[in-house]
Amino acid sequence: MSALFGGIEAGGTKVVCAVGDGSGNIQSRTQFPTTQPEETIQRAIDYFHREQEQHGELAAIGIGSFGPVDVDPQSPTFGYVTTTPKPGWQDVPFLGLVQDALDLPVGFDTDVNAAALGEARWGAAQKLTDFIYLTVGTGIGGGALVNGDLLHGMIHPEMGHMLIPHDKAADPFEGTCPYHGDCLEGLAAGPALEARWAQDPKTLPGDHPAWELEARYLSLGLANLIMTLSPQRIVMGGGVMKQKQLFPLVRARTIEALNGYVEAPQILEDIEAYIVLPGLGSNAGVLGAIALGIRAHRSDFSAGD
Amino acid sequence: MSALFGGIEAGGTKVVCAVGDGSGNIQSRTQFPTTQPEETIQRAIDYFHREQEQHGELAAIGIGSFGPVDVDPQSPTFGYVTTTPKPGWQDVPFLGLVQDALDLPVGFDTDVNAAALGEARWGAAQKLTDFIYLTVGTGIGGGALVNGDLLHGMIHPEMGHMLIPHDKAADPFEGTCPYHGDCLEGLAAGPALEARWAQDPKTLPGDHPAWELEARYLSLGLANLIMTLSPQRIVMGGGVMKQKQLFPLVRARTIEALNGYVEAPQILEDIEAYIVLPGLGSNAGVLGAIALGIRAHRSDFSAGD
Repeated sequence: MSALFGGIEAGGTKVVCAVGDGSGNIQSRTQFPTTQPEETIQRAIDYFHREQEQHGELAAIGIGSFGPVDVDPQSPTFGYVTTTPKPGWQDVPFLGLVQDALDLPVGFDTDVNAAALGEARWGAAQKLTDFIYLTVGTGIGGGALVNGDLLHGMIHPEMGHMLIPHDKAADPFEGTCPYHGDCLEGLAAGPALEARWAQDPKTLPGDHPAWELEARYLSLGLANLIMTLSPQRIVMGGGVMKQKQLFPLVRARTIEALNGYVEAPQILEDIEAYIVLPGLGSNAGVLGAIALGIRAHRSDFSAGD
Repeated sequence: MSALFGGIEAGGTKVVCAVGDGSGNIQSRTQFPTTQPEETIQRAIDYFHREQEQHGELAAIGIGSFGPVDVDPQSPTFGYVTTTPKPGWQDVPFLGLVQDALDLPVGFDTDVNAAALGEARWGAAQKLTDFIYLTVGTGIGGGALVNGDLLHGMIHPEMGHMLIPHDKAADPFEGTCPYHGDCLEGLAAGPALEARWAQDPKTLPGDHPAWELEARYLSLGLANLIMTLSPQRIVMGGGVMKQKQLFPLVRARTIEALNGYVEAPQILEDIEAYIVLPGLGSNAGVLGAIALGIRAHRSDFSAGD
């Protein structure tokens, strides 16, 4: 019997927990809203306790969390949610609470780095060493692989808060980001769409001008990510990207924004394979969390061996 | 006697060649204008031939070149200058010409990655694993270390061509980039300053409003780089950054652009140590090329051993 791993994908609005094997198969899955931290984390712990009673002990667990989080293993607050604006969640020792309750190796990273890892292992980015996973939903966030490793840097990327050109004469919308107003997230995340068009974006028809403008803003962000990280592929997930009509628009506008400067055949000749949907669909995040668990298991094993 | 290495820093306007040891000391240095490729590369080769006659054989050479270049060792055109707009330099096998003439291991990367490597080894980024070297001169370019390795990605970064907010009501200047008009380079490289103010930027007084505007544009670029790569430090070199009055302005505007979102003490409490001059001054590029030579020597040695 192969080892089982747990994954927790903690988003700002909901948490997905799953148990799976080492090959990207999920055998059990649950989800619940993100409420106060004690209650939310306890629900995750209870789920894994029940799973263990039924299927035997898990080998390890991974957590992909909304942020900002501390992902530096050398830091005294490693595994904490830190300065998030989400009420009640500041300075919560997420990793420690899970580890103490379940007494297992626990991997920890941002939700988007987890999703990037899941896509690299089993999804749309297999065999790539350099790619970006960008989620466009309640917020906009990005995770990246560089030279085959997750990008962390000093803290971790906050790609959604990139500052992009915004022609206020053509579009006077001020943006919804409490920090930057019209950064990429402030112009193009779900709440920005809802504020601008005064209706749930899910109810906007596929040919509504909202999508053309949305694609324009997203493409400016993608062009900047291409200029900075030179990814081999960009995987776009999140609730807003479920509007499939966005993909051809985003691809076309990105080529326009680059305007021939980056002469890569991957972009100029095969953009459909360059800007793509997650291969793991809406399980990218939780499978990525399981992948973090697999890594934690390995490093625990090698450290103890 | 310790081994000697050669370095070629090939910029769009001038080439610097030097010979140094493995510890960041330069023992000989020359520079000449970048003219046609045959003539330019031959001058570099002649210099190293003369140096070898005088001081004995070099162990290896490194080239840090303007681009775009092909830096993928697996590619059939590895070491070529590829689609550069610089007349005569398209599809020039830079690495191959130097290797054939000197019969030595030759390392090859972008000029800015070379400078980043030099700063990491002997300059302002020692012991850092994640940082950015940004040059602001005839163009704007960036090199980066991520998890201790040079960032290449699919091709290599082109950070200068990032698209940033540009308030055309306040500043109607169209920008000088032939591809993007008002990208970062189009607004803030040396030629943009010269075009906007109709005089050599070196002759603009230190309190001229040009520098405040310049700092604003540069800080938007830096904020985006921080959001994307989360560097532990940013080293800024190049001719424009010789205007030292820019540093306090750029630091202050970068903090404003981030507006408290990235709560890093390195930025909020110690910005003077976060956005810094190159530790190697104007030798960052050629010392970085020497560092590429040292790496080429090592990998040649381990491959042959």
